[in-house]
Amino acid sequence: MSDAPGPPLRIFADLPLTPSAECLLQEGAAGHELMLSRSPSSSMLASAATDPRLLSAEILFGQPDPAAIARAPNVKWIQISSSGITRYDNPEFRAQMAARRIPVCNSAHVFADSCALHVFSFILAQARQLPVALKSRCPHGEAEWHALRGSCTPPEHQTVLILGYGAIGERLAEMLAPLNMQVQAYRRQARGNEKVPIVTADGLARALAQADHVVNILPDSQQTRLFFNAARFSAVKPGAIFYNIGRGGTVDQDALLAALNARRIAAAWLDVTEPEPLPEGHPLLSHPHCFITPHIAGGHTDEVGHIVRHFLDNLQRFVSGQPLFDRVM
Amino acid sequence: MSDAPGPPLRIFADLPLTPSAECLLQEGAAGHELMLSRSPSSSMLASAATDPRLLSAEILFGQPDPAAIARAPNVKWIQISSSGITRYDNPEFRAQMAARRIPVCNSAHVFADSCALHVFSFILAQARQLPVALKSRCPHGEAEWHALRGSCTPPEHQTVLILGYGAIGERLAEMLAPLNMQVQAYRRQARGNEKVPIVTADGLARALAQADHVVNILPDSQQTRLFFNAARFSAVKPGAIFYNIGRGGTVDQDALLAALNARRIAAAWLDVTEPEPLPEGHPLLSHPHCFITPHIAGGHTDEVGHIVRHFLDNLQRFVSGQPLFDRVM
Repeated sequence: MSDAPGPPLRIFADLPLTPSAECLLQEGAAGHELMLSRSPSSSMLASAATDPRLLSAEILFGQPDPAAIARAPNVKWIQISSSGITRYDNPEFRAQMAARRIPVCNSAHVFADSCALHVFSFILAQARQLPVALKSRCPHGEAEWHALRGSCTPPEHQTVLILGYGAIGERLAEMLAPLNMQVQAYRRQARGNEKVPIVTADGLARALAQADHVVNILPDSQQTRLFFNAARFSAVKPGAIFYNIGRGGTVDQDALLAALNARRIAAAWLDVTEPEPLPEGHPLLSHPHCFITPHIAGGHTDEVGHIVRHFLDNLQRFVSGQPLFDRVM
Repeated sequence: MSDAPGPPLRIFADLPLTPSAECLLQEGAAGHELMLSRSPSSSMLASAATDPRLLSAEILFGQPDPAAIARAPNVKWIQISSSGITRYDNPEFRAQMAARRIPVCNSAHVFADSCALHVFSFILAQARQLPVALKSRCPHGEAEWHALRGSCTPPEHQTVLILGYGAIGERLAEMLAPLNMQVQAYRRQARGNEKVPIVTADGLARALAQADHVVNILPDSQQTRLFFNAARFSAVKPGAIFYNIGRGGTVDQDALLAALNARRIAAAWLDVTEPEPLPEGHPLLSHPHCFITPHIAGGHTDEVGHIVRHFLDNLQRFVSGQPLFDRVM
C-alpha cells in the first residue's frame, strides 16, 4: 500500500493485467482512485480508443494515447509500461511535457535484465555454434567434427560494441565481465557516469571497425531511423557478428542482407525486425546465418506483475516527492 | 623455448598436431629430443598401436597407451592431452604411477573455459527459450506470443547445483556470478579451497531437491558410472533442467528419458551421450525437450595450439622442478 499522505490521486491504467497483477495494483494503489481501462492497449504499437476517464486522470499508467494526453488537463505524471517510447519520443511531445512540467517514465528496468540475458544468450549461442551443433551428429575424430569444434570462437579478448547504452547495455556489460572481453558503448553524448568506455559520433567508425560483436540496442527515433545502413555495415570489421534487440526500424534490412551475403557480417541475431513478423518468404527468414526471435527479449515470467511493482515503487516516490525511477522526460 | 638447464629429455608425443602446433612444439621443446608419433591417436577413446620409441621416452604427451606405459622404464612425467582421463583413472594405474613416482597431468585448463561457456550457453538458451523462439514467428499480442515471453524464466535467485567441481565448475561459477544465482557444487570430499558452498554425499539428496539447474560435469570412473540413475532423477526438483557436459556413461539414459517423459525434468541439454553419437532412432534424439550437441564442449579455435602451449608451460615447470599444473595423479 502507498502511504498516500496527500489527497487521493486519480490513476488511469490502460495496460492488460493478469488477475494477480490486478490484485497487486488494487492493493498497492489503495487510498487512490484507480480507473482500469476496459479495452487495454497491449503494446505501444496499437492504441486503444480513448477512454473518457483518461481525460480526468492525474496519473497515467500503460500506453496512453499522446493525442488524448494533450486533452487531459490534470496529468501530473505518466508511467509508460514498456521500455520503448517511440510513440512519445518526438520534439512536439517532449516540448509539451516540458511546458506542462509532466515527468514521463518508462519501464526500462523491468526489461533490462531479460533483454541483457537475451542478447547474452545470442552471443553465447553464436560462440558455441549452437544452431549448427544442435543439429549435428558427426562422430568424434571426423573432419566435420574437428571443424565444428574449431569454429567455436573464444570470446576472451574479443571486442563488444554496444550501441545505445542505457539500463540494458549497463546490465549486459556486467554480465560480460567474467568473460574478459573488451566492452565499449556508443551513445550520442557521454554523461561521464558510464561503467564502460564510451565512444560518440567521432569515434564510431573506428569502433565499428574493431568490434567482433556489434550489439544494437538503439531505440527507434528520428535520429536512429535506419542507423545501420549500407555505409555503417561496410564500416564493420569483416566477420563481425551483428545483434539487434532494440527496434527493427534502426536497421536497413536490405543492407543487412547484403552484408550477410557478402560475409561482411558473419551472422545476425535479431529479436526485432520491420515489420514484425517478417512476411513469409523474406530472405532474412531463410538465411543460414540469420537467427530471429519474435520480439521476446524483454519477456519473462510474471512480466506484468513486474511492471506493476515498478509502477507502485514510482507511485511511492511520486507521493513522497522523491525523484522518479526510469524518468525519460 | 625451454631453458633446459639439465640434460636433454626424450619426449614422445602421440597427439594429432596441426602444422602450426607442430612448429610451436618443435620450437618450445628445442634442446630436447622430440619424437612425434606417425600414427597419432585422436582421442582417449581410440589408442594407436604402440610406437617403439614410446618405450624409451622420459616424457609422454598425448594419449599414451596404459599397457605401453607399464613397459616403458624411463617415464618421469605424463601429460595427457585431454581433460578426461577415463583410460587412466583406475586403482591399478594410479598405484603404478604412485609406486613409480610418475606425476600425471591432464589438460583440464585448456578446455575449462570452453566447457564452462558451452554449458552456460545451454543455461541461457534454456532460460530464453531459444529452441522454440528461433522457430516462432508469432505476432505481438497473440496468446502464443505472450506464452512464449512468459516461459522465459529469470535465472536470478534460481539454484544451480554443479556435480564435479574442478576447473570447469570453478569457471562456470565465476561466469554465473553476475546473474545472482545460488550456486553450489557436489564433490566427494570438500577440500576447503572451493569458491562455492560444497555438498558431499550426505547433502546430495537435499541439494538435488532444491536445484533448478543440475549441471553434471562428473568424470567417468567406477564411482560415477550411471551416477544419474532412476533414484537420483526421482530426487530432483520437479521441473529442473538437467545438463551433461561430463561423460555419457555417468547417466542412465533410460532413466533420463523416463524423467523427461514424466516432466520430472523439464529439459535436458547434453553434450555427451553413450554411445556417441546416439544410434539413429534413439528416443532422446527426437524428444522435444532434449537438446544434444556432439561432444564439442571443449572445442575452440586453435585447440591443438592451446594443448601444446599448456604442455610447454608444464615442461618449463618440470625442467625447473616447479609443481606441475593440472596434476591429477
